[in-house]
Amino acid sequence: MASDASRGVLDEPVSDVISRVRFDSAGLVPAIVQQWDSGEVLMVAWMDEAALRATLTDQRGTYFSRSRGRQWVKGETSGNTQRVLGVHLDCDADAVLVQVDQHGPACHTGEHSCFDVEGRQSGTAGNDGR
Amino acid sequence: MASDASRGVLDEPVSDVISRVRFDSAGLVPAIVQQWDSGEVLMVAWMDEAALRATLTDQRGTYFSRSRGRQWVKGETSGNTQRVLGVHLDCDADAVLVQVDQHGPACHTGEHSCFDVEGRQSGTAGNDGR
Repeated sequence: MASDASRGVLDEPVSDVISRVRFDSAGLVPAIVQQWDSGEVLMVAWMDEAALRATLTDQRGTYFSRSRGRQWVKGETSGNTQRVLGVHLDCDADAVLVQVDQHGPACHTGEHSCFDVEGRQSGTAGNDGR
Repeated sequence: MASDASRGVLDEPVSDVISRVRFDSAGLVPAIVQQWDSGEVLMVAWMDEAALRATLTDQRGTYFSRSRGRQWVKGETSGNTQRVLGVHLDCDADAVLVQVDQHGPACHTGEHSCFDVEGRQSGTAGNDGR
């Protein structure tokens, strides 16, 4: 697995990146958040233009809550912050991959990841998942 | 990284999984497609209920094209198929993580991944990305 994160569009001017992204009709783009070294997918969130701009500028994972209708910084209340090491757009620029160093659990449930991949994701061959 | 994939909801009755997923107002859910062993995020696509059902049943990556308005099976024309080894829902069941064994490039551009992570994602420490 990666031993050195690619910074991707973090090295480009923020306004250039913003202009390339194809936000949906609600002004949002899905953000896939991945632990930079293990490759584990931690969570999926959404970004509006301001959240993407903040993520690129501050290099803290910043998203837009569709239910609360406002921007949030991951860890602002829980302390489980995300240091952003790489940001990548997909081939048609309508999804964002955010590679982070996650401090503490990524999921609001207290689980390491929002996906139920605990069993074998980090396990050894033949591990039965317990 | 994982040396054994967790099958996740592949071991549950398909109808139970379908009933748990919170499809959006367009009847879709984002699907994050990850190479099962390296952890690389290959692509983001969308699934309607039928595409998710097909993915769970046939264990071939099957999606819904928003631009073409129809279901498609990854590799049906290119031959770059995806054998599905694990499917996972996130904590609020509005995103799907699909762990696959990707045959050939995942991206329609011919790149291995739809994300521009070529440089260092699989590289060694100190690799300058060439």
